[in-house]
Amino acid sequence: MNILVINAGSSSLKYQLFDMETKEIKAKGLCERIGIDGKFTYKPQLEGKEALNAIDVAMPTHSEAIQAVLNALVDEKNGVVASMKEIDAVGHRVLHGGQKFSESVLINEPVIEAIKECIPLGPLHNPANLMGIEACAAVMPGVPQVAVFDTAFHQSMPKSSYMYAIPYEMYEKYGIRRYGFHGTSHRYVSGQAAELLGGAEGTKIITCHLGNGSSMAAVKDGKCFDTSMGLTPLEGVPMGTRSGSIDPAIVEVIANNEGMTPSQVLNMLNKKSGVMGLSGVSSDFRDLDNAAAEGNERAQLALDVFAYSVKKYVGSYAAALGGCDAIVFTAGLGENSPEMRAKIASGLEYMGIEIDLEKNAKRGTVDITGANSKVKVFVIPTNEELVIAMDTEAIVKAL
Amino acid sequence: MNILVINAGSSSLKYQLFDMETKEIKAKGLCERIGIDGKFTYKPQLEGKEALNAIDVAMPTHSEAIQAVLNALVDEKNGVVASMKEIDAVGHRVLHGGQKFSESVLINEPVIEAIKECIPLGPLHNPANLMGIEACAAVMPGVPQVAVFDTAFHQSMPKSSYMYAIPYEMYEKYGIRRYGFHGTSHRYVSGQAAELLGGAEGTKIITCHLGNGSSMAAVKDGKCFDTSMGLTPLEGVPMGTRSGSIDPAIVEVIANNEGMTPSQVLNMLNKKSGVMGLSGVSSDFRDLDNAAAEGNERAQLALDVFAYSVKKYVGSYAAALGGCDAIVFTAGLGENSPEMRAKIASGLEYMGIEIDLEKNAKRGTVDITGANSKVKVFVIPTNEELVIAMDTEAIVKAL
Repeated sequence: MNILVINAGSSSLKYQLFDMETKEIKAKGLCERIGIDGKFTYKPQLEGKEALNAIDVAMPTHSEAIQAVLNALVDEKNGVVASMKEIDAVGHRVLHGGQKFSESVLINEPVIEAIKECIPLGPLHNPANLMGIEACAAVMPGVPQVAVFDTAFHQSMPKSSYMYAIPYEMYEKYGIRRYGFHGTSHRYVSGQAAELLGGAEGTKIITCHLGNGSSMAAVKDGKCFDTSMGLTPLEGVPMGTRSGSIDPAIVEVIANNEGMTPSQVLNMLNKKSGVMGLSGVSSDFRDLDNAAAEGNERAQLALDVFAYSVKKYVGSYAAALGGCDAIVFTAGLGENSPEMRAKIASGLEYMGIEIDLEKNAKRGTVDITGANSKVKVFVIPTNEELVIAMDTEAIVKAL
Repeated sequence: MNILVINAGSSSLKYQLFDMETKEIKAKGLCERIGIDGKFTYKPQLEGKEALNAIDVAMPTHSEAIQAVLNALVDEKNGVVASMKEIDAVGHRVLHGGQKFSESVLINEPVIEAIKECIPLGPLHNPANLMGIEACAAVMPGVPQVAVFDTAFHQSMPKSSYMYAIPYEMYEKYGIRRYGFHGTSHRYVSGQAAELLGGAEGTKIITCHLGNGSSMAAVKDGKCFDTSMGLTPLEGVPMGTRSGSIDPAIVEVIANNEGMTPSQVLNMLNKKSGVMGLSGVSSDFRDLDNAAAEGNERAQLALDVFAYSVKKYVGSYAAALGGCDAIVFTAGLGENSPEMRAKIASGLEYMGIEIDLEKNAKRGTVDITGANSKVKVFVIPTNEELVIAMDTEAIVKAL
């Protein structure tokens, strides 16, 4: 079975075609500048096939983008499948499923309506995700499509984890509550960790998805108990350019001082803050490491603030879960920075967390638990696209 | 030595006269509706003296209010001192000392200027505090006055605790950073706890000031390492009517949905949120207890959300400090609710916290540590006014 995974943005669309027998990628790529002019990138992963790198392809809408993807996949010379019939299903990443979706679903008219109803909660992403879904329906009629939601895994949170202490009507009228994101990643890596622990039942796992966007989750018995992102992906730990949690009064203080609208302040908090805003150097942690090594104090401060915030979340989620059996590091930074992992874990010996510095430094080691550690520490590469493909396969096979 | 302690608001003024030999209050009371009409309350604590309860006294400004206080204190029949000369000094509670004050100070012209410079950080309180100071200077010329800041104790926080991950210029231009409040209380109860532990050196103490306003502090070696309130008292755990930390994006979402200005949203987050907003019942925890006992689900939810948030802060501050030697409960709720203390402590056995339920239930017990607990758990009544009086005494004696 071949499954096409689509992550559609408002003017871009990422795609990967998975061979589900091998779980390997046959081809992947990117459509950019949709609705503007159109650039198309295609990277076949099979021997002897040639790539296309940001070539001009007119893409007035997402439909032309999907058509370009299909054309490349079935191309006689450089394609990876013989015909469109070999694409068995499409899995879509959808940002916001609100309170309507606690798992992945086969897309039909009621599902599309429900995703539309979640647009106020994901005003930028959900319309783009829908454009991807509608384009596939138009260009690949009859091919089953599945929606995999960033929020779904977190729907198991108890009410005391997801309610904000604001007037209750704000929840009733506008659905203002904690939803959480990166759910596909937290589900995947906590599931992998639970397997390593011998099964999810009775386990308390803290997952640290640390990348350009970062979030934390407390997972109990395999189900999400709490997570750091909130109504939007802005809340929680500081990120590449997002502030994470701050005193909410700061929105008004900046608006008044800078003569900005709330929307402009939120734009600043989402796009010009985080380790980028604090350091003034970069949103990329490798750049910060380099700058800090050269004595840049603000780069060092940004690293310190980030690590300190993650460390505090680990402590708070241990309290939430009543202890912790395993910590999981994942995503770009979590998987690739032994320094950051060590910095976060240092000082957590009081709760039985110790990492083995040698194992930690060695690339590809999953279990970096220290010899005296009561808590397991894992590095588990996340693969959201593969999880989307696997969810899609399972749903389509059950049809 | 007799010391008058003043807490001046914009239209009210609380006062207490301390006898520093006995540390007891000779008289206390309240001026209300200053600048409107004026109501005066006087409660002498000495035998045979009569109280005044909200009587009409014209108070066009804070000066008439202070004059009314003095008139009552030296009144031939119901006064508690023979003349104004027996009032040796005045200690003022001042909300915001910004980065300028890390301890209490004798008030002089430069200090008044510095408090004025902090008005943008404490726009409601600092001007009122200054009115109280200026009124005393006018009515009691020559009597030394001392300022005790709510923020001072927290000035020892490391930069990684107090910097937000927002553009660094916001800190440079407007002083936007974590300041923290309730400092006088956290200093006092952490100091008391350190004494019980045999000295502050090497200690890691988490203080929970839980009342209508609530805040947490992580105290290392007797110095504040982190605290939950931020640029303003809005951040941190949920409170009576304050939301505590929420996704900052909620400010814009509510503004857009309700057609509110940012300032109106902040007013909602400060005055109509917290356990009041969530429960729809009351900001008073006793009312919530009663309503929850009668089956009110939202009252129960508010109690759950509050306790869960405090519990998570305890966990996060243990991570911040690298462990914890003692937890201290103080202020209205912290001192008087065994149920809430037990609810917060439950599930923290993994980090060596256990409370003795019998001791916990008994009023006035300071040490409620469980038999197997590695971490001490204390209930220590706070007394901010007495600390203000003691700071004032120490500064005046050193003159």
